[in-house]
Amino acid sequence: MAGRAVIVVLCANPAIDVTYSLDRLDPGGIHAPAAVSRRAGGKGTNVARVVRSLGHAVRLVAPLGGPLAGRFAADLDGSGVEVRLVPIAADTRTSVALLDGGRATVVNETGPRLTGDEWRALIAALEDAVTPEDVLVLSGSLPPGAPDDAYGRITEASPARVVVDAKGAALRGAFGAGAAVLAPNVGEVRDALGDHRLSARAAALALHAASGSDCVVSDGPGALHAVAAGRPVSVTPPRIVAGNPTGAGDALTAALAVGLATGSPWPDILRSAVATAAAAVATPVAGAVDSEVRAATLAALHAAAGTEAG
Amino acid sequence: MAGRAVIVVLCANPAIDVTYSLDRLDPGGIHAPAAVSRRAGGKGTNVARVVRSLGHAVRLVAPLGGPLAGRFAADLDGSGVEVRLVPIAADTRTSVALLDGGRATVVNETGPRLTGDEWRALIAALEDAVTPEDVLVLSGSLPPGAPDDAYGRITEASPARVVVDAKGAALRGAFGAGAAVLAPNVGEVRDALGDHRLSARAAALALHAASGSDCVVSDGPGALHAVAAGRPVSVTPPRIVAGNPTGAGDALTAALAVGLATGSPWPDILRSAVATAAAAVATPVAGAVDSEVRAATLAALHAAAGTEAG
Repeated sequence: MAGRAVIVVLCANPAIDVTYSLDRLDPGGIHAPAAVSRRAGGKGTNVARVVRSLGHAVRLVAPLGGPLAGRFAADLDGSGVEVRLVPIAADTRTSVALLDGGRATVVNETGPRLTGDEWRALIAALEDAVTPEDVLVLSGSLPPGAPDDAYGRITEASPARVVVDAKGAALRGAFGAGAAVLAPNVGEVRDALGDHRLSARAAALALHAASGSDCVVSDGPGALHAVAAGRPVSVTPPRIVAGNPTGAGDALTAALAVGLATGSPWPDILRSAVATAAAAVATPVAGAVDSEVRAATLAALHAAAGTEAG
Repeated sequence: MAGRAVIVVLCANPAIDVTYSLDRLDPGGIHAPAAVSRRAGGKGTNVARVVRSLGHAVRLVAPLGGPLAGRFAADLDGSGVEVRLVPIAADTRTSVALLDGGRATVVNETGPRLTGDEWRALIAALEDAVTPEDVLVLSGSLPPGAPDDAYGRITEASPARVVVDAKGAALRGAFGAGAAVLAPNVGEVRDALGDHRLSARAAALALHAASGSDCVVSDGPGALHAVAAGRPVSVTPPRIVAGNPTGAGDALTAALAVGLATGSPWPDILRSAVATAAAAVATPVAGAVDSEVRAATLAALHAAAGTEAG
């Protein structure tokens, strides 16, 4: 691990993640959930939790408001994630997931509108949180009231290397801004580029061409396609892990950020990304990884690489 | 209206009702809701709101705790419902409804467990709220920690006439306790009596036989079947109203309570119950009624009664 490098994560649109475990989702029916969980969430929060579970120092910057703000902060107490919260007037949103079997049916609220002053306070808190040796992760949706090119502007102003995991206008807003890595999934690339026939490999190449950044494009349980140090490369998972795919992309982003922060070579970074995403699928909640699945997947990927090399 | 009679409603297991309006519920999909509403809820709260909208004085007694307790109370500010809240340590529950088209997919959390002291404080607050000329409504589920026969014990101890709208063990717990009216729906009667072949009319008769109380049994948009002053009677709605059936039963209960409190004759009470339930279906949220639909339905019921009498 690099000495003082910290992964700084901006979660500009955090959420309270409410997960209901149901025997079976019956549209039009009334359900008594078998279990209920409430966690501090939003993609950036999930990324921060996984960075911490990979053993790296992490700092989360997020706006927070309303009656559940205290619960959000309390949920991260003792997690090892350093939290820098920026108070806002409106209520932090809720995201609801209905789990039945391995399936998640999700309702994501849009999130509270930030005032101009609140947005500027968030940016100021972020600038205060980042030093040049750090890696900055910009993850998830922008809140209403933020400019579409916010991730581009933050990237241009950042003294640290930047990883962007976003979609739509927020992703396009980071094109040409000098991000170290863009890490959307293949569907997000197709949407952002307006070309729904792209294969995952072609999506990585097209995203690199459009953005000028290295890219890592995930395709669910399929291969990971990247343009790393300007060169196309793919990594195929050794096996498909069954479980909850929510949060797999966040785990992948966390592994990329840790790899950059520790100066790992690209092949190691990509293997870690595949293994960490698989390890997230093996856990029932987003923002957590199964360390045994991660270790086994990494070992299988190294063995396959040794076979290829031989 | 009778002078000082108040409808006192016990909502022993209140909820924050969160309603998401979706274009279409896609199981396994990710949804951005077109609209989100958060309201003070639970069946008793809905009953109290409808009593107020029918112009009668109403007092709501409910236990409340956690970060959203203040929002619950604030939502009833200015509603005209007098609120007597009993503080508890645990968090008030949330109920989530996903609306698509006219369909509601509902997840009801169980609710917080009340300690023995909290339950006794709730009963004391209820006793303090009720006088002999009032009508007491016991509506909805009992919270974990309450005895199954709670509604029976409260009914026996009540100086006021009691209306019970409950199901399962909570409904059976009121049998033989001297309630003025039991007002479950037909499915709840079938479940409580363990006989799923009962017609709605037979359900009303069987419930009367089992409980010793007058009964009003609703059958969704179908006829209302009652045993009123010991005699079977049915009222058929003049037409089926399209809309949101959530809360129709609560509106029916509210109308029964107001009818008892104002000393209306049973035929008028039952027509008001049918009309108020239809008026609730015509509104998108539980706890509200469409006054024009109510008036039109009442007029049609009176006209039909005139024809029959002629």
